[in-house]
Parts: sequence; C-alpha cells; structure tokens
Amino acid sequence: MLPGVGVFGTGSTARVLVPLLKAEGFEVHALWGRSEEEACCLAKELSIPFHTSRSDDVLLHQDVDLVCIYIPPSMTRQIAVKALGIGKNVVCEKAATAVDSFKMVTAARYYPQLLSIMGNTLRFLPAFAAMRQLLVEGYAGEIQVCDVRVYGPSLLDESYGWTCEELMGGGGLHTVGSQIIDLLSYLTGARANRVHGLLRTFVQQNSLIRGIRRVTSDDFCFFQMLMGGTGSSSGGVCCTVTLNFNMPGSFVQEVMVVGSTGRLVARGTELYGQRNGSKGEELLLDDSGWVGPEVKNMPLPHLRGLSSMVKALRQSFQAHEERRSWARGPVAMAPTFEDGLYVQTVVEAVKRSSCSGEWECVEIMSQEPDPNQNLCEALQRHKN
Amino acid sequence: MLPGVGVFGTGSTARVLVPLLKAEGFEVHALWGRSEEEACCLAKELSIPFHTSRSDDVLLHQDVDLVCIYIPPSMTRQIAVKALGIGKNVVCEKAATAVDSFKMVTAARYYPQLLSIMGNTLRFLPAFAAMRQLLVEGYAGEIQVCDVRVYGPSLLDESYGWTCEELMGGGGLHTVGSQIIDLLSYLTGARANRVHGLLRTFVQQNSLIRGIRRVTSDDFCFFQMLMGGTGSSSGGVCCTVTLNFNMPGSFVQEVMVVGSTGRLVARGTELYGQRNGSKGEELLLDDSGWVGPEVKNMPLPHLRGLSSMVKALRQSFQAHEERRSWARGPVAMAPTFEDGLYVQTVVEAVKRSSCSGEWECVEIMSQEPDPNQNLCEALQRHKN
Repeated sequence: MLPGVGVFGTGSTARVLVPLLKAEGFEVHALWGRSEEEACCLAKELSIPFHTSRSDDVLLHQDVDLVCIYIPPSMTRQIAVKALGIGKNVVCEKAATAVDSFKMVTAARYYPQLLSIMGNTLRFLPAFAAMRQLLVEGYAGEIQVCDVRVYGPSLLDESYGWTCEELMGGGGLHTVGSQIIDLLSYLTGARANRVHGLLRTFVQQNSLIRGIRRVTSDDFCFFQMLMGGTGSSSGGVCCTVTLNFNMPGSFVQEVMVVGSTGRLVARGTELYGQRNGSKGEELLLDDSGWVGPEVKNMPLPHLRGLSSMVKALRQSFQAHEERRSWARGPVAMAPTFEDGLYVQTVVEAVKRSSCSGEWECVEIMSQEPDPNQNLCEALQRHKN
Repeated sequence: MLPGVGVFGTGSTARVLVPLLKAEGFEVHALWGRSEEEACCLAKELSIPFHTSRSDDVLLHQDVDLVCIYIPPSMTRQIAVKALGIGKNVVCEKAATAVDSFKMVTAARYYPQLLSIMGNTLRFLPAFAAMRQLLVEGYAGEIQVCDVRVYGPSLLDESYGWTCEELMGGGGLHTVGSQIIDLLSYLTGARANRVHGLLRTFVQQNSLIRGIRRVTSDDFCFFQMLMGGTGSSSGGVCCTVTLNFNMPGSFVQEVMVVGSTGRLVARGTELYGQRNGSKGEELLLDDSGWVGPEVKNMPLPHLRGLSSMVKALRQSFQAHEERRSWARGPVAMAPTFEDGLYVQTVVEAVKRSSCSGEWECVEIMSQEPDPNQNLCEALQRHKN
C-alpha cells in the first residue's frame, strides 16, 4: 500500500514532483512553503488538500508517511533529521555543508528501518542504469577516464536568494556538480581520493542582482577527481568535469567513460557506445520515446531521472501491505545519506582546492566537529 | 618566383606535404631521410630528383631556398639553426625542449630577413582564422572560457621510437597539445600565466612494444591554463584542454570559446556560433566542400591546415621576383619561433605540474641556461 506524502518546497522541482507522485498513485496530503502565501498558491494549483508554512504541521500530519524535501540546502538538514526522528520516511536533496550531511547520516543510521535516500536523480536515469550495467559486464574493459560536461544557462533564481550565495549551497558545483560526483562514484564503483578544481563567478551582477549585491556562487567550475582505493597517483580512474552555466539557450550534458577496450557516452538521455576495433558508435539506449511533462528550467535528464525515482519509490512501497513499510530492492540504486556525505565532502574539497591551488584529499568526516572549535581557534589566535 | 624546396623527413606529414607543395607550384628538389633507404624509397614514390641521408647535402643544395623540416623533435633544432645559418628560409615543427626552442629563436632573431615559421598547422585552418576574426569583432563579447577536446586513436608509431618516449618529444601533450596551446594563444590574443595539468600513460605496453620496453609518453592529458597579462588568479580567460588517445576508431576535435555575449565552436573543420539570446547554433563556416587527399593517420583539420599553410607560403613567395624573397603579409598569422618557444615552455610547465601537483608559472627563457649548470649542481650536491 502506498504511503501518504508530504512535500516540502514550492520551487520548480516540487512543482514537477507532485504530478509525478500522483501519476504513480501516491496521495499528496500536505505541502509546506516558506511563506503561507507561496504554500497556499501552489497547493491550490496542484490540488493539495493541506498547506502550511510550519514544518511540524507536515511532519506530524497523520496521513503523511513519506516526506519529500526539495528546499534550499541550508534548511534541508533540520527538516530531514526531524522527520526521521518522528518516524517518517525521507527523500531529500543535498544539505549545505558536510557537517549538516554528517548529522543526517547519524540520524539515518539511528533509524535504519526508515527509508532515507538522496533525491539525486541522475542515477535513476535509464541511460545511466544501463551504462553501469554495461561497465560491470566489461563493455569498456578497465575504466581509465571519465569526462563529463554540463553546459547551460544561468542557475540563478530571478530574484536574489540562496542560488546566488556560495555559502548557502548555491552555484554550479554544489547544484549540478554534486549530482555528477554522485553519478561518477555510482558508475565507476569507486570514490575520489584526491581532487583538484577551479571555480569562477564570471557574472557577478546582472539586471536583477546589482547595487551592493554580488553573486558569490560559481557559474563556471572544472574539477578533476582521482578515484580508487589505492591512493597512489599513478593508478586509478581520472575523472574530469567541466560545468559552465554562462551558456543561455542550450543545455548539454555529456558523460563519457573511456576504458581499455571501449567507451560509453551518455548524451542527454541517450546512451551510445563504441568498442575498440569497431568502425563507429552504436546507439545502446534511445530514451527519446519517453513522454513526460515539459518543464522550464529543468533539463530533460533531471526530469527523466526524477520520474524514474518516483516509479522506484512506488515499487518499493507497494510490495508491502503496511503504509510505512518498503522493500529495499527497487530503491537499492538510490544514493544513501552516506553517499550524500561523500558528495558534500568532495564538493568542499574542490572548493578548498580552488582556493589553495593544490590537490586536496577527500577525507570523510567520522565524528561531528566540536561546535566550539572555531570559537576556540579564534580565541587562540587572539591570544598569540 | 617560387623558391626551390628541400624537405626533411619521411613520415606521414612529409609524405602529404610534398604533393601539396607541388600542387601550389613549388618544385621539391631534395629529400632527406634518416636512412639512405627510407629517403630513396620516398623520393622515388614522390618523384623527387635528389635524396640523401646527409643533412648538409640538402642544406647546401643550390636549388633549395626553402627548407621544410618534419622530423623527430629531438633533431629539429640542429637542422633548423643550421639552415638559417646557411641562409635558407625555414618551416619546421616543434623542437624537443625549451632550450632547443630558445636556440632556434636566437637564430631566427639573427637572420630576420629569412622566413622562419613553425609548421603548426591549426592556425591556418579556415575555421580558426574565421573564429579569430569573429572574436576580434566581438561576436562572443569578453572571452571567459576556452574548452578543447581532442580524442583519437593511439599516437604511437608501429615500431618503438621517439613517439613512445616522453623525453624525445613523444606523447599527446607534446604532439597535439602543443598545437592547441599555440591555437589558444592565437584565438585569445593572450598567453598562459599559470598552468595545471595531469598526464597519464594508460597503455604502457602493446602487442608491438613489450618486453623490457615501456611507453613513457602520455596517452591522456588534461591541463588548464590561466591566460592574460595581469597574473591575478581571479581574472582572465580559463582554458581547459582534454587530450585522450585511447579512443581507436574516432577522431574528435572540438574547440569552444565562451564569452559574455555568445560562443563559438569549431568541430573538426567547421565553425558554429551562438549568440546569447538566440534559439540555436548557426553554422558559420562549412568547410566540408574542401577537396584534398585522404591520409591515414592524419586528421582532417591538420591536413586542411597544412594545405592552407602551403597556399599562404605560395602567396608569400610569389609576390617577389627573387627566389628567396618573401612578403610578410600572407604568412603573418603563422607562429614564429618565439611562439614555438612559448608553446614549449607551457608544455614543460604542464609536465612539471603533473609531477608537483601544483599550479606552475610559465616563465619564458630569456637567456640560454649554462650547459654546465647541471654538472655544477651535481658536484655541489656531492660536496654537501
């Protein structure tokens, strides 16, 4: 039996998610928005019976068993951790910092019977599921290089907000790069040891953001990741990622994996491959027949991935009689909160590298930093 | 009146160059090969009246006024410098080291009346000439990012030789990367201040190179260049270049320049552009109508560029009555030996960065290093 759903967020993803949930048979009982007005407006539009701007009203809603959190990164941790504590299943987007991600991991570990997955949608895209399967089967041989490019128009919201602020989780690296980091660890089955990167904000002001306000989040980012468990610089997979969001009028997403005996390339939602020795590329998965809503500001791969994730959620829950019970199988490919912490750690290492100019190690947090540490360090500095 | 030509080299470029020269009306009087046999064989094939394995026989040949040098990088400096000293015009490929490049610059400065250009062919490709023109005219606004990808099959010769050896000038960075470095400085009108890179040799042995022999030259290389005269890390153009030569069965060359108001992309020999605000890309230069020889192992952009360079040489020389005189105009876009030194300096900085893991400064040599310096340092170390 499918659980009742409560949705946090009134942005473009939430707006797409609700119809997708309904199409799979989920009932959406409650909607949270930052302001009463935003919540009311979208609830009316999407025919959701209850809306509020107080998070507890959704979390404690008796018909809500699954909470979907698509809100600004800086607010995610608080809602996600609380939802788990109240005994609700959680699907959410990334948090703003590694510390927040770590707190979410702690909560998820504490309630292992509850579903807790990251709503990073690219893993669910059929092209990437097929790509992973082919890589496991040895289509490309030993993986050498992953090369990813995402180009598109500005990620900034129309008014000044978190998307403009690096520290609030805005920017191409945090928004799109994090999905790519997750995807590459899914495809290669390895994690980054060391990263190097460069971030830029080419457009610091525009017609809507001006005066004393400046954009601090990156609109251009490239980074490299050296993957694998060995830590040696001579072995392992090299990943290179280029993100450019100064290209209005187009959206390009290309993920290429090159191995010793062939290569696979996902362009948008389609998968191509070429084995060494063959004359040309073969189309391995044509996903162009997919029919879904067309959404402004949401590229097709993300929309398609979101749709696949909702399908997997339906399969996971409908296997059980009890509304809150779910089967692991259909959502086994989904990124866990642990994956979310890894991704956030890589994002922060890339940012450090962009400042230091050096390769930075990716070290996953294993205990929560002392919240007084910064204060102590400041006092220490002052004393000397 | 066109000068008589002497060609050094029996490789694939020399084999293509001779017919191109003849088609433009040049007479090729002499051919040099490393062995008498190689020289004889190719001279017969290309109907060149004189062949030799002694370089002086070509340099001193009375009918030779223009020398084209397409030989392994480690031998280039010696022939090029000597040719200038004898009073011949020189077109040549890159040398193996910055020191060699510096010696060539010194010779070129000493004989300014002689033509001395680098045979890097990409600048002459009509798509890049048009791209530069459009950039100068402001098609893309202020340039932010250049993004280059070159993918193709292995660059190794069939038998073990200089292409396998990093120190002999083999590898993707040295062979192809150097052309891209030159091209990007041509397109942006700026030079790299700092570079960061990563080189890999994924295939160290193959069916022909095995036993105790190993390939040391890179088959994968990723590097970034920060361009511009300011030296600040926050401004200037970011260039990213990905070279991958583990992709048999394809050749992809894509050069993209993204600016504040639009972008230009050269794919192979064609040029596309899109201004911000327009719906899609426009084809700006379709070079597909070009008819030339098809050559194995030589990608079309290089072949097309070589052909354009030979045309420019013809125009340069035919403007004058005297066989050795030439006009600067038609070859003004060609890279000089100074450009060659710059390129070689960047190549070496990228290699250093790949070892150090750090950003490396690009510092152009301004005087020849003391040949005894290494010895002195070694003695010094020994003493301490």
